[in-house]
Amino acid sequence: MAIYKSITAFAPASVANVSCGFDIMGFAVAGIGDKVTVSLQAGTDNTRVILTGKYGHFTPVERHKNTAGVAVIAYLQAIGRSELNLEIILEKNMPLGSGMGSSASSSAAAVYAVNYLLGSPLSTSELIPFAMEGERIACGSAHADNVAPALLGGFTLIRSYSPLDIISIKCPDDLYAAIVHPHVELNTSDSRRVLKNEVSVTNAIIQSANTAGFMVALLQSDYNLMKRSMSDLLAEPQRIHLIPGFESIRKAAMETGAVGCGISGSGPSIFALCKGEAMAMQVADVICEGFTKIGLFNEAYVSQVNAPGTCIVDFIEN
Amino acid sequence: MAIYKSITAFAPASVANVSCGFDIMGFAVAGIGDKVTVSLQAGTDNTRVILTGKYGHFTPVERHKNTAGVAVIAYLQAIGRSELNLEIILEKNMPLGSGMGSSASSSAAAVYAVNYLLGSPLSTSELIPFAMEGERIACGSAHADNVAPALLGGFTLIRSYSPLDIISIKCPDDLYAAIVHPHVELNTSDSRRVLKNEVSVTNAIIQSANTAGFMVALLQSDYNLMKRSMSDLLAEPQRIHLIPGFESIRKAAMETGAVGCGISGSGPSIFALCKGEAMAMQVADVICEGFTKIGLFNEAYVSQVNAPGTCIVDFIEN
Repeated sequence: MAIYKSITAFAPASVANVSCGFDIMGFAVAGIGDKVTVSLQAGTDNTRVILTGKYGHFTPVERHKNTAGVAVIAYLQAIGRSELNLEIILEKNMPLGSGMGSSASSSAAAVYAVNYLLGSPLSTSELIPFAMEGERIACGSAHADNVAPALLGGFTLIRSYSPLDIISIKCPDDLYAAIVHPHVELNTSDSRRVLKNEVSVTNAIIQSANTAGFMVALLQSDYNLMKRSMSDLLAEPQRIHLIPGFESIRKAAMETGAVGCGISGSGPSIFALCKGEAMAMQVADVICEGFTKIGLFNEAYVSQVNAPGTCIVDFIEN
Repeated sequence: MAIYKSITAFAPASVANVSCGFDIMGFAVAGIGDKVTVSLQAGTDNTRVILTGKYGHFTPVERHKNTAGVAVIAYLQAIGRSELNLEIILEKNMPLGSGMGSSASSSAAAVYAVNYLLGSPLSTSELIPFAMEGERIACGSAHADNVAPALLGGFTLIRSYSPLDIISIKCPDDLYAAIVHPHVELNTSDSRRVLKNEVSVTNAIIQSANTAGFMVALLQSDYNLMKRSMSDLLAEPQRIHLIPGFESIRKAAMETGAVGCGISGSGPSIFALCKGEAMAMQVADVICEGFTKIGLFNEAYVSQVNAPGTCIVDFIEN
């Protein structure tokens, strides 16, 4: 029998892609995320999801459609405990379709909480594939660039999907992100649909050179190289028109002093990397003003890039 | 008037592409390269090339067709000294079409020697674009992934061609390369012709993930990650069939203990990265055996990856 009656985990928001790292890079965002409380119930094979929180009513409650439910079911199958009857209370604090890793936050918190409840048979890294199953339900693609940083914290590189190979990258401590979410709904799968299937070899080479340069910049705290490396040729050119005001807002962010500025995940949120928290606050203000000026409500977050990953925030002992 | 009557510079061979870094990565190879001696002559505008060395008779002597001549002329134009009459003696020690940066070695040594003769008006990095003009004559493409390491030494990343942005990467000191040149001629422009113009976005993403992983591996001395990252989807799959025995030789090199093994530049030379000089010697032997077994004469070189770049090896004072 488990030691705990219930476990509550919090998983942070995350920024995927990070301009030049389309589908392979992401980082955690402190201060915003979903909470999941899991508890073992009597009976068998009747795991269910209960929704609470600001955005709970926008989320499917069926366990096979809910990202938290899907992730937990995949996890239970893998460890051979599908017979368990769990109650999963998802406190959905993050809006869906924000581009800030909302679905990843739910699935990361859920698998982390269940794994902890069952005595941590798997390591945090080993939970990533199950959280990815939540992504598959949410947006049609089991990508890892949100769930990996949500679970592990900090900046992660997905070196390979097959086999899964995730590298944690130690960033400079004074690297901060400003993230602004404008209230325009943008579905991740729509946002993936505008992407092309082919790219010129020339552009593939430029993309690989920028990802390489960006890694060197992060590891060597070379902000100038970081700035030069932060451009994307695979997704951003096709997605820019989906986000109102993007180009002028990015220009304003860069003029204010951002190191780089791009679409967070598949949008509509915009992120900017900055040297120091004060600059990130200033850049966040400028991005907010840009959206406000065109009539879009928005919310801003500022986070160190070396932000914590998923953690336990509450528990009840048996 | 110059202080020196003549200057002799040596520029090393180099390995370009380095598997996952197609067109953007390269490193210098100690112990083999071309020498160029330049001297100011009476008269004006009559710069000429004289060829010596083992492979001198395979190289065009006309200054507009010779990589050393072309590089020097581009350099003189840029610094506004086209009127100078130079004698360029190229000691061509490296075979053409080897995939070991033979043309880059000639043009790097030439521009370095002339710049030194004229009192070093430009820095070594600033010489790269002129040496690239030599590459344009040699293979139809002004690529920098041989001339940059030949001039600067060590491992270089070409983060961008436009504007040119070259980053020197400090590699682990115990990272060695084995390079084996089989005697099969392979023209660089032929080898470029087999390349495709388009690539799937999926493969472009994999390539960018590997370049990113490889940079992290080099900077953090993570040999295991280096091994996992060393694969190329942009050029190697199309070029493998151009190099007799490649797949079985690579297999043998990896089984011996190489970290990675691929085509050096556009081939036919093969390189392998290894941990330690002893392992590199052993791997070089295995690669040589592989070529010998199929009846190909070959030569092997073993070099630290942090090898020196172009340097002055002789001079005569005025």
